[in-house]
Amino acid sequence: MAQGYWETGQGATQACFHAYFRDYPFRGGYAIACGMDQLAELIDGFAFSAEDVDYLASLDAPGGGRLFKPAFLEYLLTFSLRVDVDAVAEGAVVFPHEPIVRVMGPIMDCQLIETALLNCVNFETLIATKAARVCLAAHGLPVAEFGLRRAQGAGGGMWASRAAVVGGCASTSNVLAGKTYDLPVSGTHAHSWVMSFPSELEAFRAYAREFPRNCVLLVDTYNVEQGIRNAITVGLEMRARGERLAGIRIDSGDLAWLAKMARRMLDEAGLDDCGIVLSNDLDEYTIQSILDEGAPVSSWGVGTKLACAFDQPTLGGVYKLSATRAPGQAEWVDRLKISESAAKLTVPGVLDVRRYYNDDGTIAGDMVFDVNAGVDEGQVIVDPLDSMRRKKLAGKRFSTMLEPLARNGQVVLDAGDRSAMEAQRRCREGLACLDESQKRMLNPHTYPVGLEYGLCERRRALVGKLRGIA
Amino acid sequence: MAQGYWETGQGATQACFHAYFRDYPFRGGYAIACGMDQLAELIDGFAFSAEDVDYLASLDAPGGGRLFKPAFLEYLLTFSLRVDVDAVAEGAVVFPHEPIVRVMGPIMDCQLIETALLNCVNFETLIATKAARVCLAAHGLPVAEFGLRRAQGAGGGMWASRAAVVGGCASTSNVLAGKTYDLPVSGTHAHSWVMSFPSELEAFRAYAREFPRNCVLLVDTYNVEQGIRNAITVGLEMRARGERLAGIRIDSGDLAWLAKMARRMLDEAGLDDCGIVLSNDLDEYTIQSILDEGAPVSSWGVGTKLACAFDQPTLGGVYKLSATRAPGQAEWVDRLKISESAAKLTVPGVLDVRRYYNDDGTIAGDMVFDVNAGVDEGQVIVDPLDSMRRKKLAGKRFSTMLEPLARNGQVVLDAGDRSAMEAQRRCREGLACLDESQKRMLNPHTYPVGLEYGLCERRRALVGKLRGIA
Repeated sequence: MAQGYWETGQGATQACFHAYFRDYPFRGGYAIACGMDQLAELIDGFAFSAEDVDYLASLDAPGGGRLFKPAFLEYLLTFSLRVDVDAVAEGAVVFPHEPIVRVMGPIMDCQLIETALLNCVNFETLIATKAARVCLAAHGLPVAEFGLRRAQGAGGGMWASRAAVVGGCASTSNVLAGKTYDLPVSGTHAHSWVMSFPSELEAFRAYAREFPRNCVLLVDTYNVEQGIRNAITVGLEMRARGERLAGIRIDSGDLAWLAKMARRMLDEAGLDDCGIVLSNDLDEYTIQSILDEGAPVSSWGVGTKLACAFDQPTLGGVYKLSATRAPGQAEWVDRLKISESAAKLTVPGVLDVRRYYNDDGTIAGDMVFDVNAGVDEGQVIVDPLDSMRRKKLAGKRFSTMLEPLARNGQVVLDAGDRSAMEAQRRCREGLACLDESQKRMLNPHTYPVGLEYGLCERRRALVGKLRGIA
Repeated sequence: MAQGYWETGQGATQACFHAYFRDYPFRGGYAIACGMDQLAELIDGFAFSAEDVDYLASLDAPGGGRLFKPAFLEYLLTFSLRVDVDAVAEGAVVFPHEPIVRVMGPIMDCQLIETALLNCVNFETLIATKAARVCLAAHGLPVAEFGLRRAQGAGGGMWASRAAVVGGCASTSNVLAGKTYDLPVSGTHAHSWVMSFPSELEAFRAYAREFPRNCVLLVDTYNVEQGIRNAITVGLEMRARGERLAGIRIDSGDLAWLAKMARRMLDEAGLDDCGIVLSNDLDEYTIQSILDEGAPVSSWGVGTKLACAFDQPTLGGVYKLSATRAPGQAEWVDRLKISESAAKLTVPGVLDVRRYYNDDGTIAGDMVFDVNAGVDEGQVIVDPLDSMRRKKLAGKRFSTMLEPLARNGQVVLDAGDRSAMEAQRRCREGLACLDESQKRMLNPHTYPVGLEYGLCERRRALVGKLRGIA
């Protein structure tokens, strides 16, 4: 396509694309935007090396001849991105049908970054959202992310760890991600530590001597009850040395039942300051169920089901052309992709989002509007899937969501805004502005995102015109 | 754990670990081993840089003080892996409960690579298996992988593209993966190409002029029927110039119904040499259903559901200690992790797999055996989950599955064996050795993998001994 744009001269057409998703992930009531740091990294490093171009030059077209023309390849060698990118802040609460990222520039440039942009924004938004769900279910108890061994590739695992922290995880066991993205790291020992010693008790003693200040013992290698007894023995030995057994971890069996038994045994032994860490295929549903049963848990380790978003491993976000402007023209022309399905109909224009707030600080509604057309006086939003559903937002305080990420291909987002911990803070604040009904796991309240009234009318007219043409 | 092993002296203990999975992915009857190339890359590059060690030195222990000791960090700077790794060939057909990778060496070294090893073998085996299922369902019609925008991170997408080709895909749209792993690449245009021109017909004409030898036109931007008519117009213009419209692509709607309509329209126009490419959320089930209906398809584009293995996004493979040998000792000592669940009980020993063949070349059964204990004369295998199920394999031809991948931390697998296309060939050959009943999508025939009789008895005795101790 890039070669086609370049050769036809179409590549100089200015275009406006928006990345957004259509459905609430995990059947929830919100999503957490993530991936902007990686997107900035991607834009920063975008170039075709001589090696890249040599490779492209080597490709044959299926019907014979070479796939790429020498003049186009020559051009790629000196190519630099000329896009303006605006995005919501990482960690922000976002909803279906509103732009998360807007890209403007020559259409060829906009499309060269399409796949990579969707890849990072889709995946990290998905994982940050999953993490937020898990952390909300954990009701403030710390959640450690440790899914790397089950993540989708090393790269997937790295960004999954970062996104999990953005969504609220207290730490990750992925030390390289900790180093690369400045995340808190934590970990304990595995069953193999216990198995490598002549007995479980010896293994526990060795671990306690090694880590007197952060000793968490995994008690289910052979038999949980005996494992807890051995941990108690070591815990009492530590106490006699003036140290403290920080916790035990249970990684199999009926976790709620075993946690209660462990608490009883530890308390009876006087180790009421020893915590209980649970892990083993946990997600927001199992955590909620274990807490509902009153299990005495200190913290959680969540792996597989978080790192690959097990119950919905992809967000399905799209990147759609919404307006073009021919070289030398001042006006943007609306572009629309029609579909039989109302949800797949795109929104034309150069868009941004206004978030309106109620007096108590909760979010009242989000308005998708065209920055060049302005906003109708009534400040009415119309549900993009059901034009009968409308809401008037006039008089309410609002803020605008999209913020500059890059200008003319240069990243303008500053380092502080790219920090994962800063994004985690924004996520926490954003979730606090949601009504409880929107954070419910089952059948949450649907949040009112709508198109600005005038924009909605314009879209309706355009659909009619295109259907007429077709 | 590494610091613990190092300080206690336990790190010098020789250990044997095996990576394997417990359940057939996608409820199928086989899996395709993959990830060995990345594993070799990982072993080749394994080292702690000064920067890595500085980072580790900066970490605080939760209870106060530093997490790592200076002497250990000093040691890491000069650390080099001393493991022997054996693995099944990439592309091989494999089954639950048999070792895919065996790692032997100092226990500390074995565990330092655990997470990264599981990450690449789990993920790539999963995707190669999914691709094999999709390609079998496509009955020889070419499948192009194009899921990068929905893959789990850029790294996930890169290895997913490679694994998809190992499993049988004809090409990938991921050009960087094509360059990096020497994979066939292919692609067409997107809806935005059409939307950026004043009309669909102009967009099609421009694309056809640009790519006269491999022109595939996407016909569903506005209205499929009109899109096909426009494609026919351009196809006839191409024919008049002595060129050929290679195909049309349909990416939405009822694909089987639209493909039949398109075929009829193309044939009536005399374009019976124009192919029909289908895409849009396809997987093995939709492909089978579309073919069952007799839709006239030339090739497929499969994205989201392949690249992230949508219906089961993780393999759940594990890495378990099975034997240790103290420094200076000649004999390996069995190690076992007990569990309440029979499926989670590990297998002790230093293991390999013999694959037995029937006279017609189909696979008769796989035997997991201890390389130091040899094989019982009757060559009987026992189902690890049900000791009543046994099978005698004596007299049948067999080959051994594990092949050297690294020796003392140095990769010994040669470049040819690491090629994705070579792995694809092995996959095709391996699938040809399965009975049709094992390749069935629904309720496939279960393949007999068993423990060698003597090994099974030894495990039974060891469980009794450990339960007695517990």
